[in-house]
Amino acid sequence: MFITLEGIEGSGKSTQIRHMFDFLKKAGLRCAITREPGGTIIGRKIRTILLDPDSTLIEPATELLLYAADRVQHIREVILPLIQAGNVVICDRYFDATLAYQGYARGLDTTFIHTLHHLTCQDLGPDLTILLDLPPDIGLARAWKQLESGRRSGAESRFEKETLTFHERVRAGYLTLAAAEPDRFKIVDASQNEQQVQEHITEVLKADSRLFAGASAQKIRKYA
Amino acid sequence: MFITLEGIEGSGKSTQIRHMFDFLKKAGLRCAITREPGGTIIGRKIRTILLDPDSTLIEPATELLLYAADRVQHIREVILPLIQAGNVVICDRYFDATLAYQGYARGLDTTFIHTLHHLTCQDLGPDLTILLDLPPDIGLARAWKQLESGRRSGAESRFEKETLTFHERVRAGYLTLAAAEPDRFKIVDASQNEQQVQEHITEVLKADSRLFAGASAQKIRKYA
Repeated sequence: MFITLEGIEGSGKSTQIRHMFDFLKKAGLRCAITREPGGTIIGRKIRTILLDPDSTLIEPATELLLYAADRVQHIREVILPLIQAGNVVICDRYFDATLAYQGYARGLDTTFIHTLHHLTCQDLGPDLTILLDLPPDIGLARAWKQLESGRRSGAESRFEKETLTFHERVRAGYLTLAAAEPDRFKIVDASQNEQQVQEHITEVLKADSRLFAGASAQKIRKYA
Repeated sequence: MFITLEGIEGSGKSTQIRHMFDFLKKAGLRCAITREPGGTIIGRKIRTILLDPDSTLIEPATELLLYAADRVQHIREVILPLIQAGNVVICDRYFDATLAYQGYARGLDTTFIHTLHHLTCQDLGPDLTILLDLPPDIGLARAWKQLESGRRSGAESRFEKETLTFHERVRAGYLTLAAAEPDRFKIVDASQNEQQVQEHITEVLKADSRLFAGASAQKIRKYA
């Protein structure tokens, strides 16, 4: 099973993904965490280019192709092998982020983005996507606090430096995607505190029959 | 006008491109040299990933997308502005290299490569392509000599480390492309010595009416 976590800067993805991992592991599921961009050695080099605040001249189409390059490598080197080995794979950002950021926020044609994904990633999509939704002013304030305290690296702050309007377009993009696929997306109010968000996500996971129903459980091997 | 220089490792592109530049400049043409990958600041970071001999795990599709990312940035930031400013742009490798290396040699579907180029680069193609053709064993011997003498950086030796068979496929790919577009491609025997190759290329340039005919000359402003 392939689960993705999406949300704007400061939505708490990194924290919640660890809680998800702990919950699924305690439940006896074989589970792995990964992220985009940067889920492979080559991906981490691509991530450096993408998140570098000095990459100001980067063209939207260049940005899109770098995310696609990172994703192709990630799928083949990490995601597919982990899924095939029976893991529940939890990925911090995936293709919906590309639609939200490069499509809805940067203004690249979403049909073009879908075509590129189809051509290069064979449309591999998540079974479940948890969207941590919150107003961008709250998210950005949190993200900047983390940057100032050194909990996040300033070398990866290019998107934090985008305008509030940009992040409002990202959020609206995510909500549009969620509305179009209500079965796959679960929206969680990320303006709540950490524990409340964690509880909501745990409920979502508990309710997912693909994770815990007998039929699926056979496919998901327990830790040795 | 947009001129590209193509050829396998050790075909002498870097040397000949400087001769071409000198010749066109002396002829009074506004002229600029650039290269792929690495014609922009972001492109140079992408080049580091692509040519790093440690990037052994890189997937062919990842490689293709990184070249496409480099190219999109290069076209918009460098090539188009230079052409629009009236320059003859000479580029060390371009889209034919992608077809030869990632298509014919790596085995990626050339229709897919064309589609990607169409979607991202709007099919911008060169007016003239000079193919420096020579047997790969001669080319690789030259390239390795340059690596050993320090004239080329070992940090950019990933393609030199490919097999002779790989470079034979690249050469065959280039020759197939040249046969399909005989008007655009001029094949130069690069197994000759530097001066002979230079003379052949100069003849090709002199014979090109788009560079030196009155009608075109109006479009090409002289150096101030």
